[in-house]
Amino acid sequence: MSNSLGKLFMVTSFGESHGKCVGVVIDGCPAGLTVSIDEVQKEVDRRKASSSAGSTSRLEEDKVEIISGIFNDTTTGAPLCLLIWNRNIDSAEYEKTRFVPRPGHADYTAFMKYGGFNDYRGGGRFSGRITAGYVMAGSIAKKLLGLIGIEVIAHTVQIGDIKAGKVAIDKIRDASSHSPVGCADVTAAEEMVSLIAKARSEGDSIGGVIEAMALNVQVGLGEPVFDTLEGALAKAFFAIPAVKGVEFGSGFLSAEKKGSENNDPFIVDNNMIITKSNNAGGVLGGISNGMPVIARVAVKPTASIAKSQQSVNMKTMQNADISVRGRHDACIVPRAVPVVESMMAITLCDLAMRAGLIPGVIK
Amino acid sequence: MSNSLGKLFMVTSFGESHGKCVGVVIDGCPAGLTVSIDEVQKEVDRRKASSSAGSTSRLEEDKVEIISGIFNDTTTGAPLCLLIWNRNIDSAEYEKTRFVPRPGHADYTAFMKYGGFNDYRGGGRFSGRITAGYVMAGSIAKKLLGLIGIEVIAHTVQIGDIKAGKVAIDKIRDASSHSPVGCADVTAAEEMVSLIAKARSEGDSIGGVIEAMALNVQVGLGEPVFDTLEGALAKAFFAIPAVKGVEFGSGFLSAEKKGSENNDPFIVDNNMIITKSNNAGGVLGGISNGMPVIARVAVKPTASIAKSQQSVNMKTMQNADISVRGRHDACIVPRAVPVVESMMAITLCDLAMRAGLIPGVIK
Amino acid sequence: MSNSLGKLFMVTSFGESHGKCVGVVIDGCPAGLTVSIDEVQKEVDRRKASSSAGSTSRLEEDKVEIISGIFNDTTTGAPLCLLIWNRNIDSAEYEKTRFVPRPGHADYTAFMKYGGFNDYRGGGRFSGRITAGYVMAGSIAKKLLGLIGIEVIAHTVQIGDIKAGKVAIDKIRDASSHSPVGCADVTAAEEMVSLIAKARSEGDSIGGVIEAMALNVQVGLGEPVFDTLEGALAKAFFAIPAVKGVEFGSGFLSAEKKGSENNDPFIVDNNMIITKSNNAGGVLGGISNGMPVIARVAVKPTASIAKSQQSVNMKTMQNADISVRGRHDACIVPRAVPVVESMMAITLCDLAMRAGLIPGVIK
Amino acid sequence: MSNSLGKLFMVTSFGESHGKCVGVVIDGCPAGLTVSIDEVQKEVDRRKASSSAGSTSRLEEDKVEIISGIFNDTTTGAPLCLLIWNRNIDSAEYEKTRFVPRPGHADYTAFMKYGGFNDYRGGGRFSGRITAGYVMAGSIAKKLLGLIGIEVIAHTVQIGDIKAGKVAIDKIRDASSHSPVGCADVTAAEEMVSLIAKARSEGDSIGGVIEAMALNVQVGLGEPVFDTLEGALAKAFFAIPAVKGVEFGSGFLSAEKKGSENNDPFIVDNNMIITKSNNAGGVLGGISNGMPVIARVAVKPTASIAKSQQSVNMKTMQNADISVRGRHDACIVPRAVPVVESMMAITLCDLAMRAGLIPGVIK
Repeated sequence: MSNSLGKLFMVTSFGESHGKCVGVVIDGCPAGLTVSIDEVQKEVDRRKASSSAGSTSRLEEDKVEIISGIFNDTTTGAPLCLLIWNRNIDSAEYEKTRFVPRPGHADYTAFMKYGGFNDYRGGGRFSGRITAGYVMAGSIAKKLLGLIGIEVIAHTVQIGDIKAGKVAIDKIRDASSHSPVGCADVTAAEEMVSLIAKARSEGDSIGGVIEAMALNVQVGLGEPVFDTLEGALAKAFFAIPAVKGVEFGSGFLSAEKKGSENNDPFIVDNNMIITKSNNAGGVLGGISNGMPVIARVAVKPTASIAKSQQSVNMKTMQNADISVRGRHDACIVPRAVPVVESMMAITLCDLAMRAGLIPGVIK
Repeated sequence: MSNSLGKLFMVTSFGESHGKCVGVVIDGCPAGLTVSIDEVQKEVDRRKASSSAGSTSRLEEDKVEIISGIFNDTTTGAPLCLLIWNRNIDSAEYEKTRFVPRPGHADYTAFMKYGGFNDYRGGGRFSGRITAGYVMAGSIAKKLLGLIGIEVIAHTVQIGDIKAGKVAIDKIRDASSHSPVGCADVTAAEEMVSLIAKARSEGDSIGGVIEAMALNVQVGLGEPVFDTLEGALAKAFFAIPAVKGVEFGSGFLSAEKKGSENNDPFIVDNNMIITKSNNAGGVLGGISNGMPVIARVAVKPTASIAKSQQSVNMKTMQNADISVRGRHDACIVPRAVPVVESMMAITLCDLAMRAGLIPGVIK
Repeated sequence: MSNSLGKLFMVTSFGESHGKCVGVVIDGCPAGLTVSIDEVQKEVDRRKASSSAGSTSRLEEDKVEIISGIFNDTTTGAPLCLLIWNRNIDSAEYEKTRFVPRPGHADYTAFMKYGGFNDYRGGGRFSGRITAGYVMAGSIAKKLLGLIGIEVIAHTVQIGDIKAGKVAIDKIRDASSHSPVGCADVTAAEEMVSLIAKARSEGDSIGGVIEAMALNVQVGLGEPVFDTLEGALAKAFFAIPAVKGVEFGSGFLSAEKKGSENNDPFIVDNNMIITKSNNAGGVLGGISNGMPVIARVAVKPTASIAKSQQSVNMKTMQNADISVRGRHDACIVPRAVPVVESMMAITLCDLAMRAGLIPGVIK
Repeated sequence: MSNSLGKLFMVTSFGESHGKCVGVVIDGCPAGLTVSIDEVQKEVDRRKASSSAGSTSRLEEDKVEIISGIFNDTTTGAPLCLLIWNRNIDSAEYEKTRFVPRPGHADYTAFMKYGGFNDYRGGGRFSGRITAGYVMAGSIAKKLLGLIGIEVIAHTVQIGDIKAGKVAIDKIRDASSHSPVGCADVTAAEEMVSLIAKARSEGDSIGGVIEAMALNVQVGLGEPVFDTLEGALAKAFFAIPAVKGVEFGSGFLSAEKKGSENNDPFIVDNNMIITKSNNAGGVLGGISNGMPVIARVAVKPTASIAKSQQSVNMKTMQNADISVRGRHDACIVPRAVPVVESMMAITLCDLAMRAGLIPGVIK
């Protein structure tokens, strides 16, 4: 296992789906940052299951607790530990299918890697639930980025074959928190809701794409050649279960383009150098160029489906069909929006600190 | 800068395009590995410019030299340092356009991040030339992986809008080294050659997609939750200039799929558990599942083009059109194939060591 | 702050003296290790205040809780989080002297480094109390080392000017847990008790030296040139408040010796190569040589003393004498014995894993 | 092997005693630092063998070459690679005793750890010669520290039983470069020269103690709890072959002291808070307190001696006496002075960068 991310702003994740808690330690947070538990809670609540988005997940309170690193509502320079205690757990279902790995899940690989000692209940360490910890860390990162003007927003741009149209940034900012599917294009959002409902009614699930963007990013974030802005962000995004692709700017489309189309011309605007287009997604040579950083993240359809699937009993090596019961989302995309946003924030925070943009003490 | 990659098999890159050399230090290579300079040289030669692939790059000898870590043609447990001395350098062109950043290049971001002290000649540290170092390291990694049966192959699957059809693995293995564009589909390859020639004749360039695969990978590579197989590979791929997207298995296509389509059923084959399909690209929960690891990497069109482009003089803040002269490739994809392969090999080698699969001493 | 230690067996510390808890996350612990909370508790109890050793420290229950990483009393490969909730806290005294740094403590440096936002109550993050977390981690490390035969023992060899005589290993093993001062030389131990009592009665304190040893260590632990066995151990020891010196084998005495005296001759014993003497303290070239690893750690006298001391009010910049009231130990050495032992165990565990001696799954 | 040190100012060492070169890669050096090869050369020359200090070492030119990271005599933000090519090598002697490990050397442990594949010629990777690389890196670190006023000085304070008396800082500054034994106390230095000569004439060797100090250090260097100033320095010092002990301030002497003697009272001086004494060696709670940082490093007697010693043939497992011929120093201490200084500078530089005291671009 390798449960720490970041060099100067380091996030260590722990906890399991059906264990006592999920949590996170944040090391390297500057002293002097005001942190209210309500702010963190608010971000965590965005990750909540929503019935209109096809979620039937357990209705946990997910109440945030901070057990170290805060004194008088302010960070001290010491590591923060944030926790959510697990409640409302029913592991009975998982005992039944203990040796029958669910297709698309980590059951098989975890069993093999950890010699069968892995906590298999609810996916254990591989459950989407651990991303609640990422969101807690992300809420702190977003506050720090806010101090230097950087804003991070994620929103749903595709579910199944329904793609959102172009929408103004203000609506995106709003939608990421308020749309049931995290999509700013109202018409598309409605279709997405229907599509998810349909998938659920069929005992099936559906995937999607989330776009994450960072606005007002200074020139200079990213540490080439191995901790590039893109590489660091991609590594962080792939820590989210179900993410199978990451691209920046024109991304995979750039493969089909000519240099003269894809290169972003430099122009002077308001005495600053900017680019006319943003096919680079705000990154040149692994370093932010001052334009919005734009990433898109492909999320596969939820692996847990009610439909019967072919599997194998790892103990008997016999075929064993499986139908995943219990609480799960027909589409994980809406709930993943704040998680993607958090991973972007955590990564940018680390890189901003490495670029010397965030001081060791906030005054 | 952050020029080291890997935890147990650590690669440190140094050197510039128009400096004295490009090089790499490899720390953590087990003792007892036979290394012939010819093997390394052979891999480096695959990265050479090829006129049929639209390259007009400088014709360097690129002669590999090993200056530490080898004794009696065998690794000693000490760090290896491998070098290629730069020759055939003409920096005159770069002096002329020193303050006019080339669109799509790191000229502007490097200038800003390093206060104008960056070596701008030929892109300096941001040149594709530094990937010659990656290939040297990759050749060592591939030898180590070979000891445990893992084979890594990359090949071109798309250039512009021309996509390769499905081809048998033996042909892919062959093509990655021998096709002028690194593409195993002979018909597509011919079209690709034409398309590149056309782009070049127009003073333009074109992008593409490279697929990398690892065969015979043991179950268990990848260290969740932050050093997942996908995250570690993605981070490594984004260290290659021009890469703008990375996906695994069904990747971005999975967004449009249903769970019942995308999940790979488990079956027993030859008393081993495998999956019937491989939409997961060989990775479940960030851990290899024994199926081929399949990644696709989007490469943007070469930023250097002869066509005139709009830019800005960073000193005068006046508009200043630029036409990039000198030696460059109309399509970087063919030359990037061995680089993508190398980054996959380096990453898998580190993860295989972390999984305990490669001993500290090779006997 | 930099609160993580180790590369493969990584320990992250959090918590404060007067905050909610002290805790530790252990990442990289192999799956399949049986862990009973009683074993951990037993080690933590060794750190308890003891009146005969001059402690007047708060009488905490220090009850260990494991909140992640264990399933069916066995490690799962996921990170372990272990906690001790703080109770019996009285911070009133610290409010009074908030701006008057206690000589010998971190009050002044923490105030300056963290802009006054540090939790000053009871020394906050700099309190000896955080070493309870080290001991929890150490108890896991000791279990892992036990699997490969390595035993780690620390004991008191000096308090003030009283030095323990040479004692057989069995007695040392016993004393480290049972002597009130952790000293195996019964006569010396009695004098030490008296000396500590005397220091306390004078409102003063006294320092000492702890010896840590590791037995049955395989040849090959230590990763030159920068993660040598000595360097890694020293770094870990200096994470214990009050440690001001570390030496190995003949240590500072070797400065006065001739090579012919200090070199340990190699001999064959029982078909194995050993050294006749052990001036090297079990380490040659930064690598364990199979002989007992012997380190000695200098512990300064407790900084907290009742005697009046000269200090300064950091706010008014006026002189301000201070007499440290409240609960503290006249000699920290006895309570530091299990902490030194833990830091040695944690470090050896990491290095043993790096040397491939501890598998990823315990069977 | 683990050949990289530091988090933001990262030094990677490579090379062997009888290989092609010794070298170092420095990653994280800010852009804009003027570097002349003469300055680096001057520091390297201080490490040269001196006959009056009992050296009979090979008379290498040790000519420094910088092969990356410098453009127009200025750092660029890219990694620096510095090299010294080995010349004047005679490995014949080492072939004869290949399987007979020299007592006190790493021959045995390296043979065992690296399965006999280690380069044994001249100690290979474990030779004191690799410290020439440290000194090259140290010269860059010292320049960076100089920009923020920090000065690092090391000097010999003990050889055998001869201890230097207290000497004014100006004389120490001078002696570290000019005394044949690096000792500022002229009378003691003369006795040291005699003692070394005597040891040599007896075919023996002698150890000593080096003191390193850093002046004008800002309050706040050191990252508790695991990258303390003391821990980070100790780790760096133990990377020097022959170092067996490290202490700070009153160090091991503090064991015998009372708190009232050892605590340094705070006073106001020139409107700054300082301590009246400096038993802490400039470090409280692992963080610099603004007083001089004072470390002492125990250096064992040179392991290579002409006198016959008892050893074993590792192949035949028979007794085999050995007398180490060839070039070596009767006392390594004088030549280790600039190395200790370099390791202190490298470590402080990294910690100063982590404390935000050195910007990413020097203007």
